[in-house]
Amino acid sequence: MSVTVAVAGASGYAGGEILRILLGHPEYRNGGLRIGALTGASTAGSTVGELMPHLPELADRVIAPTTADELAGHDVVFLGLPHGHSAAIADQLGPDVVVIDCAADFRLDDAGDWERWYGSKHAGTWPYGIPEMPGNRELLRGTKRVAVPGCFPTGATLALLPAVAAGLIIPDVAIVSVTGVSGGGKKASVGLLGSETMGSLKAYNTAGRHRHTPEIARNLRLHSQSPVTVSFTPVLAPLPRGILTTASAPLAEGGTAADARAAYRDAYADEPFVQLLPEGTQPQTQNVLGSNMCQVQVEVDDDAGRLLVTSAIDNLTKGTAGAAVQCMNLALGLDETAGLSRCGVAP
Amino acid sequence: MSVTVAVAGASGYAGGEILRILLGHPEYRNGGLRIGALTGASTAGSTVGELMPHLPELADRVIAPTTADELAGHDVVFLGLPHGHSAAIADQLGPDVVVIDCAADFRLDDAGDWERWYGSKHAGTWPYGIPEMPGNRELLRGTKRVAVPGCFPTGATLALLPAVAAGLIIPDVAIVSVTGVSGGGKKASVGLLGSETMGSLKAYNTAGRHRHTPEIARNLRLHSQSPVTVSFTPVLAPLPRGILTTASAPLAEGGTAADARAAYRDAYADEPFVQLLPEGTQPQTQNVLGSNMCQVQVEVDDDAGRLLVTSAIDNLTKGTAGAAVQCMNLALGLDETAGLSRCGVAP
Amino acid sequence: MSVTVAVAGASGYAGGEILRILLGHPEYRNGGLRIGALTGASTAGSTVGELMPHLPELADRVIAPTTADELAGHDVVFLGLPHGHSAAIADQLGPDVVVIDCAADFRLDDAGDWERWYGSKHAGTWPYGIPEMPGNRELLRGTKRVAVPGCFPTGATLALLPAVAAGLIIPDVAIVSVTGVSGGGKKASVGLLGSETMGSLKAYNTAGRHRHTPEIARNLRLHSQSPVTVSFTPVLAPLPRGILTTASAPLAEGGTAADARAAYRDAYADEPFVQLLPEGTQPQTQNVLGSNMCQVQVEVDDDAGRLLVTSAIDNLTKGTAGAAVQCMNLALGLDETAGLSRCGVAP
Amino acid sequence: MSVTVAVAGASGYAGGEILRILLGHPEYRNGGLRIGALTGASTAGSTVGELMPHLPELADRVIAPTTADELAGHDVVFLGLPHGHSAAIADQLGPDVVVIDCAADFRLDDAGDWERWYGSKHAGTWPYGIPEMPGNRELLRGTKRVAVPGCFPTGATLALLPAVAAGLIIPDVAIVSVTGVSGGGKKASVGLLGSETMGSLKAYNTAGRHRHTPEIARNLRLHSQSPVTVSFTPVLAPLPRGILTTASAPLAEGGTAADARAAYRDAYADEPFVQLLPEGTQPQTQNVLGSNMCQVQVEVDDDAGRLLVTSAIDNLTKGTAGAAVQCMNLALGLDETAGLSRCGVAP
Repeated sequence: MSVTVAVAGASGYAGGEILRILLGHPEYRNGGLRIGALTGASTAGSTVGELMPHLPELADRVIAPTTADELAGHDVVFLGLPHGHSAAIADQLGPDVVVIDCAADFRLDDAGDWERWYGSKHAGTWPYGIPEMPGNRELLRGTKRVAVPGCFPTGATLALLPAVAAGLIIPDVAIVSVTGVSGGGKKASVGLLGSETMGSLKAYNTAGRHRHTPEIARNLRLHSQSPVTVSFTPVLAPLPRGILTTASAPLAEGGTAADARAAYRDAYADEPFVQLLPEGTQPQTQNVLGSNMCQVQVEVDDDAGRLLVTSAIDNLTKGTAGAAVQCMNLALGLDETAGLSRCGVAP
Repeated sequence: MSVTVAVAGASGYAGGEILRILLGHPEYRNGGLRIGALTGASTAGSTVGELMPHLPELADRVIAPTTADELAGHDVVFLGLPHGHSAAIADQLGPDVVVIDCAADFRLDDAGDWERWYGSKHAGTWPYGIPEMPGNRELLRGTKRVAVPGCFPTGATLALLPAVAAGLIIPDVAIVSVTGVSGGGKKASVGLLGSETMGSLKAYNTAGRHRHTPEIARNLRLHSQSPVTVSFTPVLAPLPRGILTTASAPLAEGGTAADARAAYRDAYADEPFVQLLPEGTQPQTQNVLGSNMCQVQVEVDDDAGRLLVTSAIDNLTKGTAGAAVQCMNLALGLDETAGLSRCGVAP
Repeated sequence: MSVTVAVAGASGYAGGEILRILLGHPEYRNGGLRIGALTGASTAGSTVGELMPHLPELADRVIAPTTADELAGHDVVFLGLPHGHSAAIADQLGPDVVVIDCAADFRLDDAGDWERWYGSKHAGTWPYGIPEMPGNRELLRGTKRVAVPGCFPTGATLALLPAVAAGLIIPDVAIVSVTGVSGGGKKASVGLLGSETMGSLKAYNTAGRHRHTPEIARNLRLHSQSPVTVSFTPVLAPLPRGILTTASAPLAEGGTAADARAAYRDAYADEPFVQLLPEGTQPQTQNVLGSNMCQVQVEVDDDAGRLLVTSAIDNLTKGTAGAAVQCMNLALGLDETAGLSRCGVAP
Repeated sequence: MSVTVAVAGASGYAGGEILRILLGHPEYRNGGLRIGALTGASTAGSTVGELMPHLPELADRVIAPTTADELAGHDVVFLGLPHGHSAAIADQLGPDVVVIDCAADFRLDDAGDWERWYGSKHAGTWPYGIPEMPGNRELLRGTKRVAVPGCFPTGATLALLPAVAAGLIIPDVAIVSVTGVSGGGKKASVGLLGSETMGSLKAYNTAGRHRHTPEIARNLRLHSQSPVTVSFTPVLAPLPRGILTTASAPLAEGGTAADARAAYRDAYADEPFVQLLPEGTQPQTQNVLGSNMCQVQVEVDDDAGRLLVTSAIDNLTKGTAGAAVQCMNLALGLDETAGLSRCGVAP
């Protein structure tokens, strides 16, 4: 194999995590995959060593400005740009380049949804980067375009989809996702200072205001027989990485815990990166830190008449950069798991 | 005033927090309130200085064994004992002593509920220590017995009760409460080690298994016109103190955000320790750290057709020891707010 | 008593902590002390409720711009301004106003030191706000001007001064102070983001570059018979508040552990806010959180031939705002301890 | 290659980290290295899935009791046992097995030192597992016995050795190492609870009482021309992993910053796992999280007349398990870096 890869927005947290994963990828280690242009906006001109000292192997690389010229001539381009900027770049890269977009631009298929939530013109819909959703893996194999999912939608979709698809619940779901602070990105802001976030918890973008809400709803609707409503509440917690999602919904008539367990076992038995935990064990974000795993548990609360599902992911790995590399592997025809760890950095 | 106070279970987190608050109480500062016996089980014989170096004013005090003899002769006795041990002690203290129980023993009014959840014989029901629940303040004034509420029920009840009482929601509530680790108490356990809890999130006692579930349901049922069901999911997060509760339920026919805000404003306008935050501001646990405040926000999610309420408390203060002292103030006829801070130790 | 207090820079961390302490001050509770103007720079026009939701009692107060006019007419003015701005304001306030400066402007007595470290003209020297240093309490009683010490100098000076003054060490000291992130202030910066500071440790302003170095050296020199050199290394750690200082120096000829303990016992026996811990107990920042205490331990390392001293303070309380209020109490002739807690908010 | 590996003490933090690294080792991925017996004491009979859910690939493995029988028949045996138990096991494994001991048993070469610090009979001295110390790599290549260094000695030795060896300092060193809590191991203890360690800092085993002190001194003495004294102060900080070491000592006559930088550059230019950072950049533990890197900075403090060195490692990786695998690679004649990441899991 001989493939060159560029990363636009390389100095953000998503870009840095893509690079960390690529540096451990067997194709990089054996020389088949080469890391080419690294670009940024305000960071252009700085070195990786200055910006991301955790990547010593690239320390001397200089961040170039994010332009189509800099990104041209690569076989794979990861885009880690602010929402709304990907289409213009992608158009200039040509149809043969594998473009893997970490922004929201191509995730939604309803133009009205896009415009309502993002306020600009809808750029289109690309194959959606959760290979574990029915039908998606086939679309991703050999694709030239990937819309990497949002971090919350990844945790919520993997938690809920088997129940929705099997009709185990009335899909009026209440989702609360507790997240580490790296989801807020690497830009200066008072609200994300260590002083404001350590030792504290708060909900934000509540009551339907978080932009990941329509993405979650869309994923569930694609596989639901019944109308879907989503109440989504993100909570900011004092840890760097990790999303713990809890989701509950009324149990459908006649549904049982055994049915639920069977549905999840069937859905994920062959998935390398989703693990249904044994009964009695709850997902814990520490156990997926830095890994591409999603740990899931499903239970029935008889008193409340609800199904409860929980999932744990690393928001930067399975929630963003790991999914991006997983999709790159599929796009390039490589082993889907290449370069992606199943072991968390615990404790 | 001349009152002596004993604390049983003084070396646990609840006991230590009661002492911290009492040491700043104006009646203690002016000599009217005296701190008498401090008792413990395994810690008997040790000094406060060894066990709780954060209380230097009591450093030389020796923890006595928890017996009725040691606790006799005080005007007020706080009990911070494991569940199921309070009744035996209380019986021996006599009817004129103010007994304030921080365990669950006297919280529930349904003996069947108690037996199902705690597995022993129901000891009875005492005035319940959330003065902000309609009717409770009157019961607590001058009382000789108080059942201090659980930490999760405090946050959840204060968040939901106005909506339930006003019939704003169909009370099929989904509650997720994210908590700091001090709720787990001060006993050695691998699961609560810093290594296992820092940098990690996990749900526990899920799907109706947490003992605070029947207490929350009981509180809501007392003031609901409709049948109540409660789905309660606690999540452990890496901070010492604080509970952030999110609760949602289907909006009742015709309910509006304005109705909701009005109901909460009415319920809490005169409460010294519950604050309905301005629109657009979310509760944050840092802002109530070490204080007796509960901050609340209420919103309507139109897309999901649900009411969303959030609340923040310090689990050891308003969630336990602060409520205990607030109730002591009521029981002794003091200013209800005496010794209790409304300011959080932020950041 | 009838005193009005203004706080300039009220919306910063020092200002907020001063307000938190004043709100619990007995003179505020009894109406003798009134909180007047609160001023800020970029925050002028916002309310305390928006900026500091942990202070609900002041929620409706509006931050005014920091001008001499706004600050005029108060009996006490706390200045929490950037270094170099205090003299201009203080000059306009008049000699009868108690001005308590939390910046560095009036801490150093050597104009050359000031110019080297701060790059501007030296404004002068005011009574220095560590009452526990020999002679200082007398200067602070009734004073109209106070230079509140830096947070690191407070922890280091209280740790080292008895040993220096008693000639127990050769004062060539190596100080490492591990600090929480609130010391970095409340302004947006990438380096102080939660993502960059949680789960991480780093030294900064190393090798003599931290501006608190000359302040520490000055404090020790004032009471040393021998020439003093200071190696000072601050380390940033993932907690909101707290400074743990370790300091070591070669033991002077003939010095013993018993001498050291005696010197510290003598120095601090009557101090309300400095506690020499029992042998075998180490200071822990949790135990002084939100309190005005400094916990100290002193030991001799026989193998290394060095004295080791450790101290714990809350950088915002004893390290800044608590010291400021302690000095206000002295300046106004109040009980020095009024409004200042000796109990930490632990755990 | 065809090698089988056993891990004794597999369910502790060191054992778990060895397994995490081995699971990503290229020889494991290609089938040349097989993971055989995993043993424990109190955990025998439990599965890896129950004990270490972060290692899903081994979930079904059962922990066997730690006996020579269980460990027999492997080519490589990692020992993660309490101090003092390794010799008995190693003796029974035979001279042809590669035994890699993570305990202290074979680290010291002075029997008196061992007896003073560990209180039992000295078992001997094995090749010491810091390949970056002059001469060590040669001893480790092809060895059958490795004494893996302590975590603090790794950080302190890599920080100080070039300065000591080049005679840049008078080796009377003051070392303060701030550490995450996983260094305390995975056993229930009140002092290591999340409640006791989050939001707090404390020094422990101070004034020469930490057992890593003689190990640090021994490492420096081996390469020093002058007598070495070590003052070592560990500080516990609220993060799971990471050690930030600061070390200072009087600069030798005539030493300069340029000399120091040159000495460190020379010492580490060809080392894959030690990186001298560019001037002006400080090591940060986040940047080596989960990696086998040690980042180092060296500076001169002219005012204090001291050299200051800082280093960052992950205590479980380069500080224990990573070093163990690095030594295994050397012992087996593999590429020394195989399976070991140079990239930290940041942020």
